[in-house]
Amino acid sequence: MKKLFIDIEKLYTLKPAAVKQGRNVQEKDLGLITDAAILTEKGRILWVGKKSQAKKFGRVQRESLNAKVVLPALVDCHTHMVFAGNRKDEFELRNQGVSYQEIADNGGGILSTVKATRKATAAELLELAQEREKNYLKQGVATVEIKSGYGLNLRTEKKMLEVARSLKKLRVVTTFLGPHALPPEFKNTSEYIDETRKWLPMFKVLADRVDIFIEQGYFSQQEAKRFLDDAQSQGFDICAHTDQLNATGSSLFAAQLGAKSVDHCIRITDEEVLELAKRPTTAVLLPTSDFYIRVPYPPARRLIDAGVAVALATDFNPGSAPSQDINFTAILARLEMKMSLPETIVGLTLNASRALGLESEIGSVEVGKSADFVCFSDELGSLFYEVGYHPVQSLWKQSKRLFKNKK
Amino acid sequence: MKKLFIDIEKLYTLKPAAVKQGRNVQEKDLGLITDAAILTEKGRILWVGKKSQAKKFGRVQRESLNAKVVLPALVDCHTHMVFAGNRKDEFELRNQGVSYQEIADNGGGILSTVKATRKATAAELLELAQEREKNYLKQGVATVEIKSGYGLNLRTEKKMLEVARSLKKLRVVTTFLGPHALPPEFKNTSEYIDETRKWLPMFKVLADRVDIFIEQGYFSQQEAKRFLDDAQSQGFDICAHTDQLNATGSSLFAAQLGAKSVDHCIRITDEEVLELAKRPTTAVLLPTSDFYIRVPYPPARRLIDAGVAVALATDFNPGSAPSQDINFTAILARLEMKMSLPETIVGLTLNASRALGLESEIGSVEVGKSADFVCFSDELGSLFYEVGYHPVQSLWKQSKRLFKNKK
Repeated sequence: MKKLFIDIEKLYTLKPAAVKQGRNVQEKDLGLITDAAILTEKGRILWVGKKSQAKKFGRVQRESLNAKVVLPALVDCHTHMVFAGNRKDEFELRNQGVSYQEIADNGGGILSTVKATRKATAAELLELAQEREKNYLKQGVATVEIKSGYGLNLRTEKKMLEVARSLKKLRVVTTFLGPHALPPEFKNTSEYIDETRKWLPMFKVLADRVDIFIEQGYFSQQEAKRFLDDAQSQGFDICAHTDQLNATGSSLFAAQLGAKSVDHCIRITDEEVLELAKRPTTAVLLPTSDFYIRVPYPPARRLIDAGVAVALATDFNPGSAPSQDINFTAILARLEMKMSLPETIVGLTLNASRALGLESEIGSVEVGKSADFVCFSDELGSLFYEVGYHPVQSLWKQSKRLFKNKK
Repeated sequence: MKKLFIDIEKLYTLKPAAVKQGRNVQEKDLGLITDAAILTEKGRILWVGKKSQAKKFGRVQRESLNAKVVLPALVDCHTHMVFAGNRKDEFELRNQGVSYQEIADNGGGILSTVKATRKATAAELLELAQEREKNYLKQGVATVEIKSGYGLNLRTEKKMLEVARSLKKLRVVTTFLGPHALPPEFKNTSEYIDETRKWLPMFKVLADRVDIFIEQGYFSQQEAKRFLDDAQSQGFDICAHTDQLNATGSSLFAAQLGAKSVDHCIRITDEEVLELAKRPTTAVLLPTSDFYIRVPYPPARRLIDAGVAVALATDFNPGSAPSQDINFTAILARLEMKMSLPETIVGLTLNASRALGLESEIGSVEVGKSADFVCFSDELGSLFYEVGYHPVQSLWKQSKRLFKNKK
């Protein structure tokens, strides 16, 4: 049965044809339709237009959204949301001046999360992840990318992605991030990279893509090349954590290897920005972690002005970004990275879907795509502005309601 | 009838005797009682101790809190929460590099809120304020200070404080902030100050205290002295917005006049900090507005280390601090101002009550005080850490439940 969603004061469709990737997206590019309606069938969008023109469809099921503003459902395209334990004590220590290295030397840092995640059963991890899933739905997020990387051994890396795949409400994109850090069982990163390369065929079903942390003291570009080339030849999409702590040219390097997205891009140089703009790679910016670990914010304006497609994500993880609040990510993008509101919205929808290679499936409200959209009870200009304000009324994925605000 | 609140895993009483004002508050200073109970009568605390010792009270009404952590109810001691309109468009403009002055010249800034607030009826203002009141209760805030200052004429200044006094759930402290900005009807601040001095007797019932914005281009120290001296001689408590944008020595100046609190204190010098520490004045720090208007954070560590009592507040207002999220204020205090978690908690409870002159009534859980406390479903270390995470289970004021999380 066809379903017609009505009572939409303002629908911002974000049609890719109208939204010019990169360069200064304006509100007029967001594809506004007033008094709009959306016709769907079997979870897909059949038609989008003025409600007044929807009469021609005859007998259809009508669903009143009663929404001031409808956007494509939000996409969090970079998260580490399957993990056990927490690192809240490290937050207090870091604020008191204890260095990350000292914390790691005392059993803290990534390896403390690895320890807790290895120890947790799949059922325990799933329970934690389901709580976080609910938090995403309340915020209007229907699609989340989830990385492994707190196992650093085959068993736990698999366990993490199996848990990610067990989430029933969110659309989940899974990413094998074996090369996230050096596990305690290995002496050097080169040996560990070769081990993770052997695991790749075993992630063919569990992982949609692979990722690696290219950084001084973590994995080198040479190691990344061995790993990512293998992955690509086996049909995985690739992406990488690049230029986060040091300027190593890794964003451009990964883009040249064919990365769908390069994530962080804090230390990318002006020259590299111009080169990156010639490639189809999306830059995923993660200001929440920059806020928490007090590093500079990435040069969003330079990237956008050069024509790079910029996406935004929470980077949600227990260490550097212990907040799942995507509204906060967006506020930081606007305030600290000088992204306009329309650019911010594109970064959380269309460009985020592009980073995940899902731009033909989600990220905009147009014919043929999945019927994923979010209804807000307030106007566009009130979104992504007040910390703690989430006027999400309802969230829809494949034309099914995932969340309704009971207020 | 006496009421015994039980099932409190950890009660942090924050007894002033244990919490040394200023200097490096540690968790051990927070007056922890495990497996605690609180006995109340007619809204006041009669006894606090171990649940096991509560048997002696015989027949009392028992109320299970089932709480991991109980703290004194939070106090937001500096807000402008009664206002109409919003200034969200200015946020976008400021992020795009338009200066505050240009915005003001085009009818934006404080005077746009003044215009909207003058125009709004008391009923309209009350409806807005009641929505904000609910948002406070959800966050565990039972006491809020509310300033006038968006009227800048007698009628609207009164209307604002009448609305503030009409809130039924929060404990409200009202502050007459006539000298917030120069109203369009006046040519110079000196004339306007003399006008507000004439109004003072008419605020005897409506306002608990008075406040003034001492700043270059706003009100001078001389003008402040005329206004605050009058106010004090009429029995008002006084406080002031000081050293926010420019180093004018106004924090120490206001403290010397007898201010209960000096608020902002961003530009206070080291020498002034040492002098301030000799006085009973509380420094109220407002990091949310510093975050939004991108000015430096105040020197919290220097203030605390010198022995100044430091309180924290949201500064909630439609211009510089459009977020009511007190958890976010606390996170900024920890991350950006290097306050420890215990110092942050003291800043939101005991020292905030001190800023308002209510330290004998609220701010700690001890015998004789009002039974105001907040129950959390998570441990102490998980509080004031994740943006968007509010594990408030229930909030109690005068031993009555103001809020219960239905989750």
